[in-house]
Amino acid sequence: MSGLAPGSGLAPGSGAGPAAAMAPVEYADATAEVRAVYDDIMATRKVDWVNNYWKVLANHPATLRRMWANTKEVMGPGALDPLTKELIYMAVSVTNGCRYCIASHGAAARKKGMTAEQQAELIAIIGLANETNRHAFAFDLQIDDRFK
Amino acid sequence: MSGLAPGSGLAPGSGAGPAAAMAPVEYADATAEVRAVYDDIMATRKVDWVNNYWKVLANHPATLRRMWANTKEVMGPGALDPLTKELIYMAVSVTNGCRYCIASHGAAARKKGMTAEQQAELIAIIGLANETNRHAFAFDLQIDDRFK
Amino acid sequence: MSGLAPGSGLAPGSGAGPAAAMAPVEYADATAEVRAVYDDIMATRKVDWVNNYWKVLANHPATLRRMWANTKEVMGPGALDPLTKELIYMAVSVTNGCRYCIASHGAAARKKGMTAEQQAELIAIIGLANETNRHAFAFDLQIDDRFK
Amino acid sequence: MSGLAPGSGLAPGSGAGPAAAMAPVEYADATAEVRAVYDDIMATRKVDWVNNYWKVLANHPATLRRMWANTKEVMGPGALDPLTKELIYMAVSVTNGCRYCIASHGAAARKKGMTAEQQAELIAIIGLANETNRHAFAFDLQIDDRFK
Amino acid sequence: MSGLAPGSGLAPGSGAGPAAAMAPVEYADATAEVRAVYDDIMATRKVDWVNNYWKVLANHPATLRRMWANTKEVMGPGALDPLTKELIYMAVSVTNGCRYCIASHGAAARKKGMTAEQQAELIAIIGLANETNRHAFAFDLQIDDRFK
Amino acid sequence: MSGLAPGSGLAPGSGAGPAAAMAPVEYADATAEVRAVYDDIMATRKVDWVNNYWKVLANHPATLRRMWANTKEVMGPGALDPLTKELIYMAVSVTNGCRYCIASHGAAARKKGMTAEQQAELIAIIGLANETNRHAFAFDLQIDDRFK
Repeated sequence: MSGLAPGSGLAPGSGAGPAAAMAPVEYADATAEVRAVYDDIMATRKVDWVNNYWKVLANHPATLRRMWANTKEVMGPGALDPLTKELIYMAVSVTNGCRYCIASHGAAARKKGMTAEQQAELIAIIGLANETNRHAFAFDLQIDDRFK
Repeated sequence: MSGLAPGSGLAPGSGAGPAAAMAPVEYADATAEVRAVYDDIMATRKVDWVNNYWKVLANHPATLRRMWANTKEVMGPGALDPLTKELIYMAVSVTNGCRYCIASHGAAARKKGMTAEQQAELIAIIGLANETNRHAFAFDLQIDDRFK
Repeated sequence: MSGLAPGSGLAPGSGAGPAAAMAPVEYADATAEVRAVYDDIMATRKVDWVNNYWKVLANHPATLRRMWANTKEVMGPGALDPLTKELIYMAVSVTNGCRYCIASHGAAARKKGMTAEQQAELIAIIGLANETNRHAFAFDLQIDDRFK
Repeated sequence: MSGLAPGSGLAPGSGAGPAAAMAPVEYADATAEVRAVYDDIMATRKVDWVNNYWKVLANHPATLRRMWANTKEVMGPGALDPLTKELIYMAVSVTNGCRYCIASHGAAARKKGMTAEQQAELIAIIGLANETNRHAFAFDLQIDDRFK
Repeated sequence: MSGLAPGSGLAPGSGAGPAAAMAPVEYADATAEVRAVYDDIMATRKVDWVNNYWKVLANHPATLRRMWANTKEVMGPGALDPLTKELIYMAVSVTNGCRYCIASHGAAARKKGMTAEQQAELIAIIGLANETNRHAFAFDLQIDDRFK
Repeated sequence: MSGLAPGSGLAPGSGAGPAAAMAPVEYADATAEVRAVYDDIMATRKVDWVNNYWKVLANHPATLRRMWANTKEVMGPGALDPLTKELIYMAVSVTNGCRYCIASHGAAARKKGMTAEQQAELIAIIGLANETNRHAFAFDLQIDDRFK
């Protein structure tokens, strides 16, 4: 892995915390390399802004490039429709309790058509699965032959 | 909460472990109350057998009844199609590493039409979301105003 | 699953986030159906107010009703005393890092008599169990025959 | 931290896995230092054997000694009764899906009097708390002023 | 376990939440027993202040003493260098989404020399491992013979 | 995402479970595309075999290619030495309880020089961090100003 963004404000051994210290890299301050990724994010998503996840990742351009390539491939067109992909993302993020991810992918899901009724069902399923997962752990359930 | 199934084999203070000790209650050995739930599970799912989760829960009939009522309501017809519901269930179960739940809901998803390509995408999204959730934690990301 | 609360303020595709957007449904604004659940919560708990969990769930009355029925059955009188039930709830909530749940069930535990000394022991046990769980994972411990 | 048990069979860089390779240290093969801990475990618990967790930890005597001292202090007599302490331990272990810990502390709980009815309630509460924790995450619930 | 700190402000059954209510015990208000631990923390770390974790733990002096003894032994000089120990701590804390721990151990890691480039790699590895862990769960991977 | 491996044995809607059903793709049966990745894995790691993770991923060549590219970039030469990278990987995998990952990365760590003493310290730190993470959750600790 190589290369810190110029002007990222990251100094080795600075007193700042790992998160708060990691200032978002704004488009105006970004290198051509980082701008190219931002441009692709905006073009792919048909929006005119970039959210904080990418702007903080941009402090380490190699990771920005890598994560965007992964996201584009995994969340792009495929055998599952775009809304379903967001619902799966939400199920993971809610299970892990990731506030930022719930906010950002909740917004993405609504943009892709998630209705309030669908959201309510999504949350109900996530809750139920987290419950029954623990029942299965507690009982040390043996997998039925028909499921093998 | 009340009532242990007759013949459940559960004796207070027995040496057996919490899981292995909890023998599945087979239909032939079940009370009328438990059979009624088993019958409803089979009728609702249009199958002729009941999987281990329910048969172990049956040691405590009140919980069997309660969990089946929840499952029927949450996983039944609604605003999300049946396959999408299973994919959400899988996303939670894989995140938590629940072998039994992955096996049983993986089978359910395939029965409802999940293709191998869709399964591959499901797993890829689950992996990516678990990864980016940790990036968000590490950076202590602030939620963008546009997501609020 | 069916039915959004009138006046819930939930519009499909609205820009608001999944959480912040979900405004609590106050008693004065609630339908008769929702008020009936609120009334039962207050009567059962012998309090004159309803906490945010239920007021946000009320945006989807079917879920409100279902979750209250579950809570009433599981947390109601049984073989475990009320305080012990809250301590178990706390152990799960602290393990998962759920701030809201720790606050609400911590308050419930104190109301049911948890002393500061008991709270300190609760937290110590939760910490120790989370530690030894990882030792067991790291060593891939085989279950002793005497535990089977 | 210092000192590997003589005869622990651990060789730096050996090909064996981190768990399977870590053979339990039997009493007959143990050093005086390790035997002293084993003796205290058996005396404290009034049993005539030591379970695998301690026998594997014994490969690193300093950790064995440290973890036993912690366990003795945290799980020993205090403001919470012995069974309640085990139920809290179980709640954490089931939430984390730790098979070994569920088996060992499930056995300990039964030894301390946990009835089948209490076990059923324990598992029901663990499941419910894991479910509502995710509802709280999904809704990003604000903590009620009365809980502060 | 025994003994609450005089002046800890903890009253059984008080209305305060489990966290907010637990006021940090400042040096000026601490007992000789607590001050002795604070002094050892500051001397060991060569700093002139004590962070909130210890000051809140100090409400229960026995736990303060126990946890500091553990931390001193586990995080002290050994076969792994101090920075590596902090990186391992960070990997756990980020996986669990513990904001406080990420902030405090991130600061400790920087103090021990973690560069911005190393921090970026740390976060990348944490993300990747959380991703591939879920792939392994989803596939229910069999352990290769060569790893046993 | 595109393309299933010829001869992967994956048939949509087959009865097999999501894991067991996913047979490893052996080199002899692999397409040129898959073999190219296998060859690069073996050359990069200087070994003459490929472990199950990659062989199961190979059922979906696009994911195999993507995950190997990520692993090569993240785990390759950088600012952290190879052993430290494996220890971080282990810390995540043990926290999540991923048996396969613990076995495979434990073997990798030993190959890169991890001693038994270092392994013992690694596991001790993982345990301690999982413990103190829960203390921080339970206390809802405020981040010290000096850490910001």
